[in-house]
Amino acid sequence: MLKKVFLVICDGLGDRPLRELGGKTPLEAARTPNLDRLASESECGLMYTLGRGLVPGSDTAHLAILGYEREKYYAGRGPIEVAGLGLRLQQGDVALRGNLGTVDEKLTIVDRRAGRIRVVEPLTKSLDGMEIDGVTFIIKPGTAHRAGVIMRGERLSDAIIDADPHKPDLPVRKVTPTDRSTEARRTADVLNKFLARAHEILKTHPYNEERVANGELSANYLLVRGAGQYNVVPNFLERYGLSACCIAGGGLYKGIGAYLGMDVMELPEATGLPDTDVEKKFQAGLGNLQKYDFVFVHVKAADSLGEDGNFEGKRDFIEKVDQAAELLVRLPDEVLLIITGDHSTPCSQKSHSADPIPILFRGFGVRVDDVTSFGERSCSRGNLGVLEGKDIMAQVLNLMGKSPLVGA
Amino acid sequence: MLKKVFLVICDGLGDRPLRELGGKTPLEAARTPNLDRLASESECGLMYTLGRGLVPGSDTAHLAILGYEREKYYAGRGPIEVAGLGLRLQQGDVALRGNLGTVDEKLTIVDRRAGRIRVVEPLTKSLDGMEIDGVTFIIKPGTAHRAGVIMRGERLSDAIIDADPHKPDLPVRKVTPTDRSTEARRTADVLNKFLARAHEILKTHPYNEERVANGELSANYLLVRGAGQYNVVPNFLERYGLSACCIAGGGLYKGIGAYLGMDVMELPEATGLPDTDVEKKFQAGLGNLQKYDFVFVHVKAADSLGEDGNFEGKRDFIEKVDQAAELLVRLPDEVLLIITGDHSTPCSQKSHSADPIPILFRGFGVRVDDVTSFGERSCSRGNLGVLEGKDIMAQVLNLMGKSPLVGA
Repeated sequence: MLKKVFLVICDGLGDRPLRELGGKTPLEAARTPNLDRLASESECGLMYTLGRGLVPGSDTAHLAILGYEREKYYAGRGPIEVAGLGLRLQQGDVALRGNLGTVDEKLTIVDRRAGRIRVVEPLTKSLDGMEIDGVTFIIKPGTAHRAGVIMRGERLSDAIIDADPHKPDLPVRKVTPTDRSTEARRTADVLNKFLARAHEILKTHPYNEERVANGELSANYLLVRGAGQYNVVPNFLERYGLSACCIAGGGLYKGIGAYLGMDVMELPEATGLPDTDVEKKFQAGLGNLQKYDFVFVHVKAADSLGEDGNFEGKRDFIEKVDQAAELLVRLPDEVLLIITGDHSTPCSQKSHSADPIPILFRGFGVRVDDVTSFGERSCSRGNLGVLEGKDIMAQVLNLMGKSPLVGA
Repeated sequence: MLKKVFLVICDGLGDRPLRELGGKTPLEAARTPNLDRLASESECGLMYTLGRGLVPGSDTAHLAILGYEREKYYAGRGPIEVAGLGLRLQQGDVALRGNLGTVDEKLTIVDRRAGRIRVVEPLTKSLDGMEIDGVTFIIKPGTAHRAGVIMRGERLSDAIIDADPHKPDLPVRKVTPTDRSTEARRTADVLNKFLARAHEILKTHPYNEERVANGELSANYLLVRGAGQYNVVPNFLERYGLSACCIAGGGLYKGIGAYLGMDVMELPEATGLPDTDVEKKFQAGLGNLQKYDFVFVHVKAADSLGEDGNFEGKRDFIEKVDQAAELLVRLPDEVLLIITGDHSTPCSQKSHSADPIPILFRGFGVRVDDVTSFGERSCSRGNLGVLEGKDIMAQVLNLMGKSPLVGA
């Protein structure tokens, strides 16, 4: 019988054939003896995470794979990032994510990340708790230049544009409403007041003055984006009866775990970068199989390397994942192992795409097929056929005998 | 040209690989030369009866395969079972199915089937026609301990819970409404009165006194469940222009046939058990191809054996079906032959599952593919690909040239 689930998501895993790789994708070109062995012990398929033709964001993709319909449970990136910082939203709250950046005296952006500033806590602390027109601003530091923002008060709305223009050399945006409600107008107004006051505080903050004295950029502006309002998200345990933990380096993925009520592990070796220690992550995951029913391990770098167009780097990183996957080959069949990606990030396009991603299911009761290598094209001949993200948890529950009967 | 259709549904046919069968499913492990030959002359596929991830009940699965959406045409099991007893519902009727069971003086269940009593007609007769608060109770015997119940009167509703707690050693339930309507309250109230009066009659019934004198259990309580209200179900002939008959052993499947207005054959050799005479059923079906356009033959035991976890029994029963299928190999190609299951019943799980079932279409005009054996994994490589139950009748009509044009 299946007792546990181990889900590995390699961000941006899928790709397109590259002439430079002899017409293979980075995954197909990589030497992956462990992943291939796992595929040969699995039932395989090809997943269109959000459905054919839709290019998944990392947030919506993960929600889909974990069985949370975006129409119902996705309210922008703010609430997810803020959850990843350990904050809990309340009814009515609006959450945003932000960068501490550098602007000149005309409020034109010099650097969106203030020279990739590494510690912003002294700055966020000086803003945290500010109250404007009955709205309290809760500001917490994220990793490096990042920060989370919660607006708490009455009559707020997330129908506002980003203050962050997303590119340097542009002026910061005045926040404006995107609908005609008084709530959206009020929220934009209060947020604009806050951002102006914050700028006043930041530009004369001793921490910034010290930075400038050291020849570094002043982190003098809080660039906010991704506004989203609190909504009720049933936690993973309630939804599936499976206790769950999340092991990830990147803030978004920890955020997804926290947003769904998973326990989020802190693992210093998980960096979210190509130097991350995949083996340590898998080890930590395996160690958690005693305590949790469902272990979700996220590996990031294939996506970033794809966005850089670095196909050799992507191929090599996949080989690194394969080496760590030797640990997974030893998993007993009472653990349902699922390996997949959240979307494709073709190196030739340097951005997410709608191309499907291979997926494998391995464990007790699975209808093992004759696919013997883990790749975009080999898995398209697997028994699972063409799936969508929303089918994954349904198949997990089915294999565990936990799905309800429709009819009698 | 195709002139006739012969549909065989093997209940619970699909399964998962079993170590005890060398990693094969019971269907894959069974020696099935006739089914394999039919597959090699067919176009094959894999069917998720209600869609991926949904675990079909036998009732909803059959309705789907026969092209009746459950959202529209499924109103609980009562109306189907009652149809199988030859009763016709009228507008406003509520139908239930029931067992004659044994309770003690505290109304706790001793045996839900009164020691598997074989004849209940004397008992149901004593209850049939009772009138309470303007509601007439029509009570008919089913096979063995079973009975059908119709409540006929004004202002009735099927929004009530089962009186049957579904397990022994529990007290019978007081029927309560599941919504706030006065109809549901009234129905629960009248049904409670009926069940109490029925108990008074049954416990002193001479037939029961004789049973007790013989050391048998008294069938002193009518345990009802599966309330469903009359709804308009277009009959099969009107819907498809195909006259149809149903050959089945189990009451539910005869009920499905009757519910859809098919002629239901009575065949004493069709028992719904592993001892059933599959050959006789196929013979009867073939004999009916003169008279009917569409012959539906249901074979039950693979499902029950799966629910018992009896994988050898399931494999052997499939071999028995295969032997009888020699008759089907001789079918001329003007008969469209379809062989499938309604859902999987994995022996390792002992209950219905969402795993897909193989299906084959054989006859004139079919795009025969290169699948040469009838099994869960072999058919996944068939030309039909992945289907749902609702696609089956659409494909039948298409192959017969009876589908309307969409557009011009």
